[in-house]
Amino acid sequence: MLNIETPPVREDTPLPHLTLDYSANLDGRVDMPALCGELQQAILDTGLFEHGAVRVRALRADAYAVADRLPENAFIDMSFRIGAGRTAADKKRAGTAIFAAANAFLAPLFATPHFALSLEIREIDAELSWKNNAIHPRLRNK
Amino acid sequence: MLNIETPPVREDTPLPHLTLDYSANLDGRVDMPALCGELQQAILDTGLFEHGAVRVRALRADAYAVADRLPENAFIDMSFRIGAGRTAADKKRAGTAIFAAANAFLAPLFATPHFALSLEIREIDAELSWKNNAIHPRLRNK
Amino acid sequence: MLNIETPPVREDTPLPHLTLDYSANLDGRVDMPALCGELQQAILDTGLFEHGAVRVRALRADAYAVADRLPENAFIDMSFRIGAGRTAADKKRAGTAIFAAANAFLAPLFATPHFALSLEIREIDAELSWKNNAIHPRLRNK
Repeated sequence: MLNIETPPVREDTPLPHLTLDYSANLDGRVDMPALCGELQQAILDTGLFEHGAVRVRALRADAYAVADRLPENAFIDMSFRIGAGRTAADKKRAGTAIFAAANAFLAPLFATPHFALSLEIREIDAELSWKNNAIHPRLRNK
Repeated sequence: MLNIETPPVREDTPLPHLTLDYSANLDGRVDMPALCGELQQAILDTGLFEHGAVRVRALRADAYAVADRLPENAFIDMSFRIGAGRTAADKKRAGTAIFAAANAFLAPLFATPHFALSLEIREIDAELSWKNNAIHPRLRNK
Repeated sequence: MLNIETPPVREDTPLPHLTLDYSANLDGRVDMPALCGELQQAILDTGLFEHGAVRVRALRADAYAVADRLPENAFIDMSFRIGAGRTAADKKRAGTAIFAAANAFLAPLFATPHFALSLEIREIDAELSWKNNAIHPRLRNK
């Protein structure tokens, strides 16, 4: 049944998306690609998600207003969207792992009273979700 | 009752917002404004949404980590937010139409095992939604 | 019980996040940092949120398609995410205040039939939320 020219297919696996919004004043202070990589590894290490499905990205906000608006105030806000169906315990475990990884990576920022970090998990309704992933066949055949 | 100088008003029509997050390595490979236009047309062609209400936009993520982190790995993740009240069948039809239009436009990317596309539909609670649209009066008077 | 070296702690207070998506053709026409500041003040003036918790930011969309795609068509779409537990009346009041502040700031844009403004409030599940805010101790000790 192996199909060498595997076409893109609808898959039923979860679709974890981690999106970071961050204040632009973190540029030069945080290596965002490295942070994305660390968080992706933390997601994979939970064992709950498939390698080819994980997408982490950071969106820079050039304009922002944080707390008392000191120019050094900064934030990273993370949203983790996953397919429905996991247990509450698994979701809690995944969130805790991601948040711990982010805290470790960003520890230097917490040395000053000007940084806020947050994470939210939200489930995606499978009935209202569509996917086409050309990366899966490559990684599944490894 | 016609008011020539139609003021901006709260309207009761749906408010479709389509947001694309994409990895910055697609710059130069995907014509994002053209893709936004194609998707907007697909939304209008469903007949479920009003012309003046549709807003499609793409947000570039300069930092990201996708699957096995090959530099050529890329993604577009779409979120379609609509007013509540449509039938499940209509929502399914709208999502399928949008996803088909995106797949057609992005077909060249699927020729390589490095691209992932996704779409989620989410409803907006009308009780917790506010709108002011100066475009509607112009298009409704046409 | 006062701890001079207050460590970052998990707090139970609400976590208001206001995110603006906007079309890039508003650059030079809207002072986005000033708008973020105005909206933050409107959020604080409701009395429902703690100073150190509020984060407002604006994300620019370089590619977009709005309504009939005239080049001057523009939009700002706001999402306000808050901790669960407020009354419906409080949520309505907060949204109305934020929306009024945005309308006042952006009044010049509504003089033309090319601008659309929107706001959605969405609650965050406290069970699936993590926070670490180094700004709180500083402001709470003031």
